[in-house]
Amino acid sequence: MTDAATETGRRKRSGGRSGNTRRGGRAVSQLPWQIPQILDNPTEPLSPEGVAAIDNGAMRILEEIGIDFLHEEAKAHLKAAGADVDPDSNRVRFDRAMVRAMVAKAPSRFTITPRNPDHQVTVGGRSQLYVNVSSPPNCSDLDRGRRAGTRDSFRDLVKLSQYFNCIHLMGGYPVEPVDIHPSIRHLDCIRDKLVLTDKVVHCYSLGTERVEDAMEMVRIAGGLTQAEFDGSPRMFTNINSTSPLIHDWPMLDGAMRLAKHGQMVSVTPFTLAGAMAPVTLAGAIAQQTAEALAGIVLLQQINPGCPVVMGSFTSNVDMKSGAPAFGTPEYMRATQMSGQMARFYGLPLRASNACAANCPDAQAAWESAFSLWACTSGHANLVYHAAGWLEGGLCASYEKFVMDCETLQQIMAYNQPIGLTEADIAVDAIAEGMDARHFFGLQHTQDRYETAFYGPFLSDWRNYETWAEAGALQTPERANRIWKAILEEFEAPPMDPAIREELDAFVARRKAEGGAPTDF
Amino acid sequence: MTDAATETGRRKRSGGRSGNTRRGGRAVSQLPWQIPQILDNPTEPLSPEGVAAIDNGAMRILEEIGIDFLHEEAKAHLKAAGADVDPDSNRVRFDRAMVRAMVAKAPSRFTITPRNPDHQVTVGGRSQLYVNVSSPPNCSDLDRGRRAGTRDSFRDLVKLSQYFNCIHLMGGYPVEPVDIHPSIRHLDCIRDKLVLTDKVVHCYSLGTERVEDAMEMVRIAGGLTQAEFDGSPRMFTNINSTSPLIHDWPMLDGAMRLAKHGQMVSVTPFTLAGAMAPVTLAGAIAQQTAEALAGIVLLQQINPGCPVVMGSFTSNVDMKSGAPAFGTPEYMRATQMSGQMARFYGLPLRASNACAANCPDAQAAWESAFSLWACTSGHANLVYHAAGWLEGGLCASYEKFVMDCETLQQIMAYNQPIGLTEADIAVDAIAEGMDARHFFGLQHTQDRYETAFYGPFLSDWRNYETWAEAGALQTPERANRIWKAILEEFEAPPMDPAIREELDAFVARRKAEGGAPTDF
Repeated sequence: MTDAATETGRRKRSGGRSGNTRRGGRAVSQLPWQIPQILDNPTEPLSPEGVAAIDNGAMRILEEIGIDFLHEEAKAHLKAAGADVDPDSNRVRFDRAMVRAMVAKAPSRFTITPRNPDHQVTVGGRSQLYVNVSSPPNCSDLDRGRRAGTRDSFRDLVKLSQYFNCIHLMGGYPVEPVDIHPSIRHLDCIRDKLVLTDKVVHCYSLGTERVEDAMEMVRIAGGLTQAEFDGSPRMFTNINSTSPLIHDWPMLDGAMRLAKHGQMVSVTPFTLAGAMAPVTLAGAIAQQTAEALAGIVLLQQINPGCPVVMGSFTSNVDMKSGAPAFGTPEYMRATQMSGQMARFYGLPLRASNACAANCPDAQAAWESAFSLWACTSGHANLVYHAAGWLEGGLCASYEKFVMDCETLQQIMAYNQPIGLTEADIAVDAIAEGMDARHFFGLQHTQDRYETAFYGPFLSDWRNYETWAEAGALQTPERANRIWKAILEEFEAPPMDPAIREELDAFVARRKAEGGAPTDF
Repeated sequence: MTDAATETGRRKRSGGRSGNTRRGGRAVSQLPWQIPQILDNPTEPLSPEGVAAIDNGAMRILEEIGIDFLHEEAKAHLKAAGADVDPDSNRVRFDRAMVRAMVAKAPSRFTITPRNPDHQVTVGGRSQLYVNVSSPPNCSDLDRGRRAGTRDSFRDLVKLSQYFNCIHLMGGYPVEPVDIHPSIRHLDCIRDKLVLTDKVVHCYSLGTERVEDAMEMVRIAGGLTQAEFDGSPRMFTNINSTSPLIHDWPMLDGAMRLAKHGQMVSVTPFTLAGAMAPVTLAGAIAQQTAEALAGIVLLQQINPGCPVVMGSFTSNVDMKSGAPAFGTPEYMRATQMSGQMARFYGLPLRASNACAANCPDAQAAWESAFSLWACTSGHANLVYHAAGWLEGGLCASYEKFVMDCETLQQIMAYNQPIGLTEADIAVDAIAEGMDARHFFGLQHTQDRYETAFYGPFLSDWRNYETWAEAGALQTPERANRIWKAILEEFEAPPMDPAIREELDAFVARRKAEGGAPTDF
């Protein structure tokens, strides 16, 4: 809190709302790079007794039911930590005092530093970081429609993620490039992310080789010694439990490797209420908490103090079809409740800017807006899928990406402090305005108008007639023009040629070795 | 607070989220009529010192600059109240102690009762009421495009307002019917509102005759004696100051007449920052506060204890074009700051679900969602323009009306209490779910699935393929089908034939007398 207040104070400019300085290329007049600090206190739907009741539920799940860990090394670590590991199954039960002690080892706040140290991020406290859309199999744009992802579309979306200052971290693949064989996909994709961007990158925890390769590539791209890489967080992963109550081998294996090297792991149960978790929100959050803490206990046993994040993905399903729904009232409350639980355990929170809509229309916009306000009011520190997500995560939309960046910037502007000096309260200017009958021409206005308000790059505020004469373009059509202009002017951030050569040589060698094993 | 907590308690059902009972006709499966109670504490961007600073600014405006009242009777009342009335101009200055004393007479909470007492509303506390769109000159729908309002479109939008349970009050004309001469427009329109709806109705404060006619018609429709009408609030009006710092004759005259009869008046300054108010938010809110309190002092002098509401309409303008913007970060903060000021003076707050977009697309949806979250986090008691508004208020959209009702319902569902019983935390169900590997079939789920989650009537949660096969309808196209189905099945609420006859006779007589004078 003190740190956050200091940061806020540092960013504040006297006499007005800051953050309106324009920077960037010709395509978009955007806000400068910054780590948003949430200004408001969190919205807390649970009383302290409610938090204690859900904590007790989670502890009962860990004590009485237990979690299946499908990984022998993980079970050995948990046994060493004092967990009750069933010798005849994968079931692990946890005493609550042990859980508390292990979770207390995790930091509540840490940094991650990419190859460009100016793009270092702080996770925790009142920081809110935006991560681009991750993992859809499909992408779409207005010109080419919906299609399976390829390396070209993957690169396009990586470039958009680098371009927008409001995207702080490069998440999983913004679309799966199915034209690259899975055995070597991670090599090409992480190389592209490291070359085309200079922000913190993610790697998938999908078994041994992919994670080891990714760590080596991040080390090379950063020009780091192994000790420097291990010395502080440089990258991150996210693992999902197989809800209810299972942690699977590939994700555990990757997470454990990253934890050993001090890299960030987010543990995000996939607890859709009514499907993989109870139909009650309190039950779903209790289960989510148990699954997340079980993973965090393991990682803290492996490397005490390693950076971890509690992930929330609890939403409801459409009880008619079983389809997941996002940006719903239940999603909002689940996210805020997750924030309360994360703060109770002293952990940063990850949530998502999610929607269920099938096209970038009004439903997509209100579902995403509701999700974003849940993330902000719930104090989510990492907002996954912050830009580009459609169809419950099955499609990355170029236009939605641009639309989301507009609303992300608005939330950043919303979090700027409000000026309250005597000049801000402006009694003298009001006396002048009373005489002039308008404020446009006043010196008080002229001194401030350029930075007084957030200026959008996508919203169209012209009157109907002017808008109609200019073609009556709807939001996705305007977004379409913007992403084309961005890709047209995109330039990759500078990289030392020697480093690039080393990176390419590593990729070539690992491809020659066959990459990661696949069963197809 | 205590009252609100009691109401919340009364509405709570054990073991789950209530409010999902379906009611209504075939067109829409909607939530039942209810007075939403905001569950969360308000978001307060101002510290107590900040509130005091803005209060001090407002008091300095009232003391040092003053407000022009363009109405002799109003000036006489204010002089009687102890204000400093300049004999050579319309300027009135107010001592802050007098302002405090007069404003303290206003109730912080009151009811308004329409002809159907089941549709009584409570204004104040944690109640949040939704008012349909008011006063656009134009309307639009996907079939007929944008056009000037007529009595037919006026009636259509009144019917939609009656149909949706989430619309609690009938605001000003949802579109101006320009095919009715202004001298008699109020007679036809208020008759239509009173016959086609049984909810609380608004009348415009546009001079003497319109207000007197409207009060008489509301009295007749309610089957009330004059004493019964005067005895408690039955209707409402809203007046806007001519910012900066002027209260005009027609609005003052109407407001004073309604106040004399104990009817509700909302005083809403039109303080767009940078145009009619300072470019700084703190300055715009100080001015808004001064203008609103000046009107409220007048009404409390005329009828101490009469129901009044502090209105907020502060937003920013596009500094390039001067066009008003809505649903912006500044609009959100202004609304929350207004809520703090209203609570400081013990007054209910009115704000709006506003947007600047020119069509019911994604921009309209996110601007409206941001506005609605501002209203909810700022504890707005009356949300004007809650459904149907586009183009900064210049157009009422049939499709947007339906879309807004979907999001209003979601905010109502969001405000349902969260169940925290042992059955809600559901450790036993989680043990069962662990064995079954899914929760759909559990008894715990079966017992709750029908009411566990909010069920939308407009959002489409089907997967892409199913949605595409069904025609890939975007949100406005689906909303288009819904309003047609509603208008198809609409039935006016019952009205005693004798009352209807009396109402029609009154309208006929007043038309014969020429209605209200106009200067054209």
